Amino acid sequence: MVSDRSQPSVVTTYKDAPTRMISAGGVTYAYRDLGPIGGVPVVFFVHLAGTLDNWDPRVIDPIAENHRVITFDNRGVGATTGLVPDTVEAMADDAFTFIRALGFETIDVLAFSLGGFVAQALVARHPELVRKLILTGTGPAGGKDIDKVATTTYLDTLRAALTRSDPKEFLFFNRNATGRIAAKAFVKRLQERTSDRDAPITVTALRTQLKAIKNWGRAPSADLTAIGQPTLIANGDNDRMVPSVLSRSLHHQIPDSELVIYPDSGHGGIFQYHERFVPLAVEFLDR
Amino acid sequence: MVSDRSQPSVVTTYKDAPTRMISAGGVTYAYRDLGPIGGVPVVFFVHLAGTLDNWDPRVIDPIAENHRVITFDNRGVGATTGLVPDTVEAMADDAFTFIRALGFETIDVLAFSLGGFVAQALVARHPELVRKLILTGTGPAGGKDIDKVATTTYLDTLRAALTRSDPKEFLFFNRNATGRIAAKAFVKRLQERTSDRDAPITVTALRTQLKAIKNWGRAPSADLTAIGQPTLIANGDNDRMVPSVLSRSLHHQIPDSELVIYPDSGHGGIFQYHERFVPLAVEFLDR
Repeated sequence: MVSDRSQPSVVTTYKDAPTRMISAGGVTYAYRDLGPIGGVPVVFFVHLAGTLDNWDPRVIDPIAENHRVITFDNRGVGATTGLVPDTVEAMADDAFTFIRALGFETIDVLAFSLGGFVAQALVARHPELVRKLILTGTGPAGGKDIDKVATTTYLDTLRAALTRSDPKEFLFFNRNATGRIAAKAFVKRLQERTSDRDAPITVTALRTQLKAIKNWGRAPSADLTAIGQPTLIANGDNDRMVPSVLSRSLHHQIPDSELVIYPDSGHGGIFQYHERFVPLAVEFLDR
Repeated sequence: MVSDRSQPSVVTTYKDAPTRMISAGGVTYAYRDLGPIGGVPVVFFVHLAGTLDNWDPRVIDPIAENHRVITFDNRGVGATTGLVPDTVEAMADDAFTFIRALGFETIDVLAFSLGGFVAQALVARHPELVRKLILTGTGPAGGKDIDKVATTTYLDTLRAALTRSDPKEFLFFNRNATGRIAAKAFVKRLQERTSDRDAPITVTALRTQLKAIKNWGRAPSADLTAIGQPTLIANGDNDRMVPSVLSRSLHHQIPDSELVIYPDSGHGGIFQYHERFVPLAVEFLDR
């Protein structure tokens, strides 16, 4: 093949996407940018304790074939500087700063778990910024049992330490035969990138995120009927972190929303069912 | 070589020692038994969250060359049935039940950390049972900061989960170049046994052990001057779990005791310095 020397070749595999840095508002944000330039980029909002290295390449890569994809570490996470704020709203402000620093005026959002809380806060504060919204494994402010995430996280992290496993095997997947296989496969996929990996989150940063999550779970309900964006909501049917019923709550309140609940799966349902979820997400974004 | 068919060959490598079971007092205890029959056996008392698989083969094997060695899971731990009790004294009662069930009237003890608390309680209740005592990485009832073990354990377990490490790398070793190398080597040695491995401790059992440790740390001081056994006390100089100063307290109070403090090491000092510690322990036992 003859390469077009007028333009750099486009990276569409997440494991090969270089980590980039951009400074704004006194913070240097680490991010990765892949997929073709042009059109509305899809910005990914990651979960509790998640860094750039916590995105499933089986979800990122097929989307990056035809969409520009941006992943980032929010303030105080991974290689991004500063301190994690203790409210979801402040995290949304930081995300806004980062997105504007990249020069984007319109984005699509694919958010998971805590990322979904941040995405909701972002849309509430800057509705003009977001064209389409994908909310996965997440729930509304004041959602029942969201304030129990810290306890579940601590206990499952102990459980994982004692069984030499990854905590996500317990937190994201069912503990049945199907779930265990899906969990191991997911954890393995996150290791496909071998060079230029992100820094892990610190214990202090994680604990502050847990505080923000508790605040979100105990906050008064927000008015989600104001969300005007087309919204795709997805989760497993047995989410122990952000209960699956909260995905239904989101769906009932967000006017232009559709709901997908996967069987026999937990918080990580979209990763377990990536072969079903990704085509759906792509169709939703391209619609 | 012609084997002596009148007697089974003696297993002296811990990774090859079969796991055995014995029932007493309504509990079935899992244990391993290696080294030559005859003489006073050395019974090993393991640490918080530890099972049969948590003994360093570099400590066990050289001792088992010339001593019968017994390791065991106390009640509710690993493959042993029942529920973990929430006091060190009850753990000592269970250990006594197990040891008597094996028919031993005199034993030597090599105890580490929580195992050292249990060994002290055992000696207090059954002084006639124990001939010699090796107390490592441990401290007396009421010892300052022992009640903080739970918090340290939880935080370092999180830290380990976030860095894909073993919590013992943080809990047992210094975080300098020497300590990190020693930690990785230790964790690797614990994996040398590949078959017939023990069940990991459950989260519930671990939490009950942590409660027992807190009780021990907040208990009134015991009269250790009553310990008549020759006692060898060893630790690293920078123990974050059971502060090294508590090894000195044991030494000051136990009349016939000697103290060894290893430089540049933590709670797992005897594992980091196994090449120095084991000859010392053997000489002490054989003296």
